[in-house]
Amino acid sequence: MGGADSTTLRETLAKNIRLVRNKLGLSQEQLADEAGLHRTYIGSIERAERNVSVDNIEKIAKALKVKPTDLLAGEDD
Amino acid sequence: MGGADSTTLRETLAKNIRLVRNKLGLSQEQLADEAGLHRTYIGSIERAERNVSVDNIEKIAKALKVKPTDLLAGEDD
Repeated sequence: MGGADSTTLRETLAKNIRLVRNKLGLSQEQLADEAGLHRTYIGSIERAERNVSVDNIEKIAKALKVKPTDLLAGEDD
Repeated sequence: MGGADSTTLRETLAKNIRLVRNKLGLSQEQLADEAGLHRTYIGSIERAERNVSVDNIEKIAKALKVKPTDLLAGEDD
């Protein structure tokens, strides 16, 4: 709680996806291909423009080889 | 990984929401009121019929006073 409340879960997800994707050296297009999603959709997720669904969170986590909870964890997790 | 792959993230979310809600002694209607969602929507989420969005996961976690990651954590988390 506390300061973490100012960041939405959507923003946390966006930041974590970009972070892990960059760490793996993947482009948005490569991640999109792995996850079976569209490149522009990945871009809009990473800008926190999209209200991503749990099914797509699962696809992205699998493509990034992390646990879904890793993508939603904030600084206090 | 391993056996956990047979359970979808949607099912894990459904199970965890029901578990925490029951632990708190809340009805689906009470949770729905707290979260600003509809009672029948909560019911369908708990039956894993709905592809819940990250914004609604955040609302439900706040209403249940848990972290969003708690709702998505599987047995191996």
